[in-house]
Amino acid sequence: MRYLTAGESHGKQLTTIIEGVPAQMTLLKEQINESLIRRQGGYGRGRRMKIEKDLVEITSGVRHGYTLGSPISLVISNDDFKHWTHIMGEEPVQDNADIKRQITKPRPGHADLNGALKYGHRDMRNILERSSARETAARVAAGSVAKVILNEVGIDVVSYVKQIYNVRALDHPNMTLEEKKRKSNESPVRTLDQESEQAMMSEIDQAKKDGDSIGGVVEVHVEGVPAGLGSHVHYDRKLDGRIAGSVMSINAFKGVEFGVGFDAANRRGSETHDEIDYDPEKGYLRKTNRLGGFEGGMTTGMPIIVKGVMKPIPTLYKPLNSIDIDTKEPFQASIERSDACAVPAASVVVEHIVAWEVANALLEQFTSDTIDQLKDEFQKYRERIRQF
Amino acid sequence: MRYLTAGESHGKQLTTIIEGVPAQMTLLKEQINESLIRRQGGYGRGRRMKIEKDLVEITSGVRHGYTLGSPISLVISNDDFKHWTHIMGEEPVQDNADIKRQITKPRPGHADLNGALKYGHRDMRNILERSSARETAARVAAGSVAKVILNEVGIDVVSYVKQIYNVRALDHPNMTLEEKKRKSNESPVRTLDQESEQAMMSEIDQAKKDGDSIGGVVEVHVEGVPAGLGSHVHYDRKLDGRIAGSVMSINAFKGVEFGVGFDAANRRGSETHDEIDYDPEKGYLRKTNRLGGFEGGMTTGMPIIVKGVMKPIPTLYKPLNSIDIDTKEPFQASIERSDACAVPAASVVVEHIVAWEVANALLEQFTSDTIDQLKDEFQKYRERIRQF
Amino acid sequence: MRYLTAGESHGKQLTTIIEGVPAQMTLLKEQINESLIRRQGGYGRGRRMKIEKDLVEITSGVRHGYTLGSPISLVISNDDFKHWTHIMGEEPVQDNADIKRQITKPRPGHADLNGALKYGHRDMRNILERSSARETAARVAAGSVAKVILNEVGIDVVSYVKQIYNVRALDHPNMTLEEKKRKSNESPVRTLDQESEQAMMSEIDQAKKDGDSIGGVVEVHVEGVPAGLGSHVHYDRKLDGRIAGSVMSINAFKGVEFGVGFDAANRRGSETHDEIDYDPEKGYLRKTNRLGGFEGGMTTGMPIIVKGVMKPIPTLYKPLNSIDIDTKEPFQASIERSDACAVPAASVVVEHIVAWEVANALLEQFTSDTIDQLKDEFQKYRERIRQF
Amino acid sequence: MRYLTAGESHGKQLTTIIEGVPAQMTLLKEQINESLIRRQGGYGRGRRMKIEKDLVEITSGVRHGYTLGSPISLVISNDDFKHWTHIMGEEPVQDNADIKRQITKPRPGHADLNGALKYGHRDMRNILERSSARETAARVAAGSVAKVILNEVGIDVVSYVKQIYNVRALDHPNMTLEEKKRKSNESPVRTLDQESEQAMMSEIDQAKKDGDSIGGVVEVHVEGVPAGLGSHVHYDRKLDGRIAGSVMSINAFKGVEFGVGFDAANRRGSETHDEIDYDPEKGYLRKTNRLGGFEGGMTTGMPIIVKGVMKPIPTLYKPLNSIDIDTKEPFQASIERSDACAVPAASVVVEHIVAWEVANALLEQFTSDTIDQLKDEFQKYRERIRQF
Repeated sequence: MRYLTAGESHGKQLTTIIEGVPAQMTLLKEQINESLIRRQGGYGRGRRMKIEKDLVEITSGVRHGYTLGSPISLVISNDDFKHWTHIMGEEPVQDNADIKRQITKPRPGHADLNGALKYGHRDMRNILERSSARETAARVAAGSVAKVILNEVGIDVVSYVKQIYNVRALDHPNMTLEEKKRKSNESPVRTLDQESEQAMMSEIDQAKKDGDSIGGVVEVHVEGVPAGLGSHVHYDRKLDGRIAGSVMSINAFKGVEFGVGFDAANRRGSETHDEIDYDPEKGYLRKTNRLGGFEGGMTTGMPIIVKGVMKPIPTLYKPLNSIDIDTKEPFQASIERSDACAVPAASVVVEHIVAWEVANALLEQFTSDTIDQLKDEFQKYRERIRQF
Repeated sequence: MRYLTAGESHGKQLTTIIEGVPAQMTLLKEQINESLIRRQGGYGRGRRMKIEKDLVEITSGVRHGYTLGSPISLVISNDDFKHWTHIMGEEPVQDNADIKRQITKPRPGHADLNGALKYGHRDMRNILERSSARETAARVAAGSVAKVILNEVGIDVVSYVKQIYNVRALDHPNMTLEEKKRKSNESPVRTLDQESEQAMMSEIDQAKKDGDSIGGVVEVHVEGVPAGLGSHVHYDRKLDGRIAGSVMSINAFKGVEFGVGFDAANRRGSETHDEIDYDPEKGYLRKTNRLGGFEGGMTTGMPIIVKGVMKPIPTLYKPLNSIDIDTKEPFQASIERSDACAVPAASVVVEHIVAWEVANALLEQFTSDTIDQLKDEFQKYRERIRQF
Repeated sequence: MRYLTAGESHGKQLTTIIEGVPAQMTLLKEQINESLIRRQGGYGRGRRMKIEKDLVEITSGVRHGYTLGSPISLVISNDDFKHWTHIMGEEPVQDNADIKRQITKPRPGHADLNGALKYGHRDMRNILERSSARETAARVAAGSVAKVILNEVGIDVVSYVKQIYNVRALDHPNMTLEEKKRKSNESPVRTLDQESEQAMMSEIDQAKKDGDSIGGVVEVHVEGVPAGLGSHVHYDRKLDGRIAGSVMSINAFKGVEFGVGFDAANRRGSETHDEIDYDPEKGYLRKTNRLGGFEGGMTTGMPIIVKGVMKPIPTLYKPLNSIDIDTKEPFQASIERSDACAVPAASVVVEHIVAWEVANALLEQFTSDTIDQLKDEFQKYRERIRQF
Repeated sequence: MRYLTAGESHGKQLTTIIEGVPAQMTLLKEQINESLIRRQGGYGRGRRMKIEKDLVEITSGVRHGYTLGSPISLVISNDDFKHWTHIMGEEPVQDNADIKRQITKPRPGHADLNGALKYGHRDMRNILERSSARETAARVAAGSVAKVILNEVGIDVVSYVKQIYNVRALDHPNMTLEEKKRKSNESPVRTLDQESEQAMMSEIDQAKKDGDSIGGVVEVHVEGVPAGLGSHVHYDRKLDGRIAGSVMSINAFKGVEFGVGFDAANRRGSETHDEIDYDPEKGYLRKTNRLGGFEGGMTTGMPIIVKGVMKPIPTLYKPLNSIDIDTKEPFQASIERSDACAVPAASVVVEHIVAWEVANALLEQFTSDTIDQLKDEFQKYRERIRQF
């Protein structure tokens, strides 16, 4: 399974093409829209998130509610594009001076300057329109299809916020996945920890009031994964490596870890590994999950637990120093948009990126031209490893 | 540039084939051996590291000290293989019962059980021989060629240990890269912080005495990288994502972060980003490097700073509970080898993995059929962005 | 450079996403439309080609007439889709029996049956809508962007028809590429040989009258390619191999050859190779081009000459025997459409597929984040090999 | 499944690494050697083939006669290397003038000049050592592993010579695959047509006497392939396209075709397609196989029939004109080796290249971490399509 995305933040539309989805699987635009809408939520979003309402159009690959096996194309239109045609239209203009809203002032923390240097664009709108986190909507669309695949075989994924600025959510190790889903969806900051919720919102309010921004830590939890997804035989087939690479490629993410993650440095071996047990009914078991569901690049059968850290959004009312690339004069970086905190929304993005990688590993491992083949093979495999 | 590795831990040899190296570049086996030998060092290694001495043989792609442009194959022979032919030989045996040193007891924290379930091997030696960290020697060999490429264009890479168990090295922000190289190579635990060195070694000694193991945090620092390597235009071209995926695919690594990394959650936006400055001589500059050299998946021109966390080695004298897959009886996990701490060596591995990804990004971006083309283009690009 | 296509023949639209196009290159939808319109021409096309008029919409990657460097998405809408929503819509239907125009009768020569067996579709419309040659419009769109890249560096591509059924066009070795372009575009059967034109059309008329169909041979000629594109160092980097694979993947193509091609079997070595000459002004030269511009998987500096053979269209008024997959009863295969000969149009498709592969080889070989870098590097390379 | 090859013609060794082979499959070096030895046979080979005897060493991935699932590395040593260390050794030399057997005279028909221009090598030995057809031994080694996989599921592959120079073998449509194997292996020119055998050998003798060379046409026949390998859904997943690309990447191949191939141009649609029939026991059937086993990029269930044309070997005693790149003076091209006809051997190469692509399509389509999974899934699929 593979996908490409296209589209600029204020362009006509975002487009995703997904190639390699099993045939004969139910796929409705409502399933994709649910993911898109969840991505747009979260306390602390700016004005734009509120006026936009991302909705997908399925333009190929699905017929009468079922996948054909052929590439699926998904379009998220930008309703606001009519106001942007003079700025972002693809037609040539007579006089470059007529181009409105050119940007010569790079914002620290964004791709603006690096992209301009690389691609030689003197109007940095040509960079920031693509580097914008708006592109994650196209990735969430891809991930929502992956989630449908996972659901077909009984794998479920949930995301929630572990930390916003200095407020850390308490762990709730005994919460079921269903509860985690419900709690995270109900919480304005997508936390499972009701105690921390108010404090997180206060920090967001305070940052907004100060013209500043804050980041945080999100966690994704994948349940129902059997042992043996991914492979140890070649480094680029290790599933934890692939997930880490994908999570780090999300805008503003600066770190990723599995299970105890960086805390592994503070533990001894005897406190770090997950001992192996056996139950005649269930097969091999682990009582702990410190390694976040991975050993040797393969799943252990325990839930995948992956965390990512998002830096504070770099677009601030409280400006950062920068340089105008035309005049070479210093200025204080302008505001293109103004969320004080995008961590709750980002947790939804990570959830979908992780779902993609897990679904992809499934399709690589098992016969999957049709969804029924995948379900059969997956069930057979589960049974085989139970009896191993 | 791409590579494949092959070889089992106690097999005949490790093999690496690298395809896509520029032609006409000086490449000597001494350059590769230097990397291999550095990987074998470090306080706290077990007996095996001391008796082995990895040396490479270049079996293709190089003629009279220069690369041809054709694939480079590298072999690291296992001198001890003569004692292992009955155990690891490729010839069929008459009677499976004759196979010595079969393994039916999976070790927690290793690939043993997951791999056995996936590949259906009842003798788990068939898994652990490949999942062993010995394979990282083949990856270091590949990375050593990448380092030669980087050196040709003035990019340098260094690695060092930031933390072993609960001992954290102090930062030495003003140390030059050359000093970092020297210090790390001189230190038995590859730390830059002489103050911490003794404490780190003591922790290793204590862990060994207790039959336990400890992990830690390593850092890699890449200097001389211009702004604009990698690309924001598609998620899978972001260089920080690629580096993160590769680092996480190293045996025993559970987390990776750039710059302030997970600490970004504890900071406000105004304390996290790297303001942009300008110098008529040098072009655009940053005074800080909190983002570890990346914005928007592209390099910023500041050093790349990446950290990874290694869990304690799971093979302990102090055993972990597990289950014999034949008898389904519990046992206490056996010892295949016995380093108490492999963090110093692992830092060398990360250094080479990061070097690979950076060199690969260079070759993708610039004309590089020959090393001279690459050098010319790279110099031209540096000059162009300086004057931008 | 890479691309994905999506879309069904009677679906809402065809979509192409192209990733990796250099930035700052002029790209207008008129350039793409010209290619699409040329693909729709040709004597012998059925009714559908005449009523449809493929026009592209650029939905991302281009701003004010210039490429951004970000992915380019191209949409070719199906104006007729409003009449097909009940048949091809993506919305679920209440009762499967309501689905109109289901197909249970596979047509020999099409993907219908093989695809149904593979993907388990009992309504073979689920296969043929994607396997239809309509998808080549999306590939031509990609190829038209490739042609723009090639034109920027002085490489030009032309296609023409060499044979329709038993009528073979005479060679016109002294015709310039410009003449070839003009002649092929003026000819209703896209042949360079005016003598054969009428006979070709007569054969098409006769086949149509007989309810039968005919195929033919097309040739693509690429001029301006320097020596040394592609590489001998690894089999999957040989450019002739890549072109051959792409041409064979075009609907109905059953053979591909370079230069003298299969006639090489009838020649001796002394009559087959292209001797090497030298001119102080021009550098190394060949007086002949029997090998079609390739030696060792690399270009020789002579024009690339590639031929492909297209089988007769399998959809005939004169029917072929087949089996209804529901009743298992024999029937005579139904007509979904009715071109008697699609060879002229197919020549345009091959032209664009070849252009893609050549442009891709260029981008792999030379610095090309921006079109100016590519042009500079390409010029420098031309000069270097001239003086070698 | 993927592989890389490395090695120069007169270098130390050829190396192949294959990644992705199912675990628990019997694999013996004798199986690989049989393929290598068959590649070295054939009437008309020069002296070198006779003194060399390629034998493989399995250096990883196989234990006690079974595959581990980990990468398989294969080495073919060059026994003659001891005489070539001064010419091809990887160690630096003091003085470039000491390098023996430098080549400044490019041979028409070889990669020599194109490669030199691309990679800037003034000693063209740096090109020809890699571009030599000797590399096909490493590809045959990979293909021999593919053949073992195919045999496990009842797919068999045979190759034979259809034409040498102007001698065309008669078709033997009723010969079984077993007979084809026997006949081709017994014939010095690997033809199935005893009538033509003597004439083919005479042509080879005559060419040799004249100091000239001749080429020919080879055919590969794959039996036991079910309908539905490959896919129509995306152009780069069409199996006939992949096979064509691989065959064209073999040294000296200039054309490839399936079934009636280029003769499709001479036929009407009613004479070209393979009508569909049905048998309650066997399922869907075809009585003819004009399309060579492919429709829509997928297999039809009929044998795959692919032909390739090999040009005459360009290294002739009867020399071709060329230019010394140092003096720019004309000369008559030197002889590095001297087979008059390599077509019989080349047929073995094509056989293995085709086997690789078919096996790879199988592994992509079906669960195949272990060979038993593949066999089960394949059998299940065969049964499903029989009953469809």
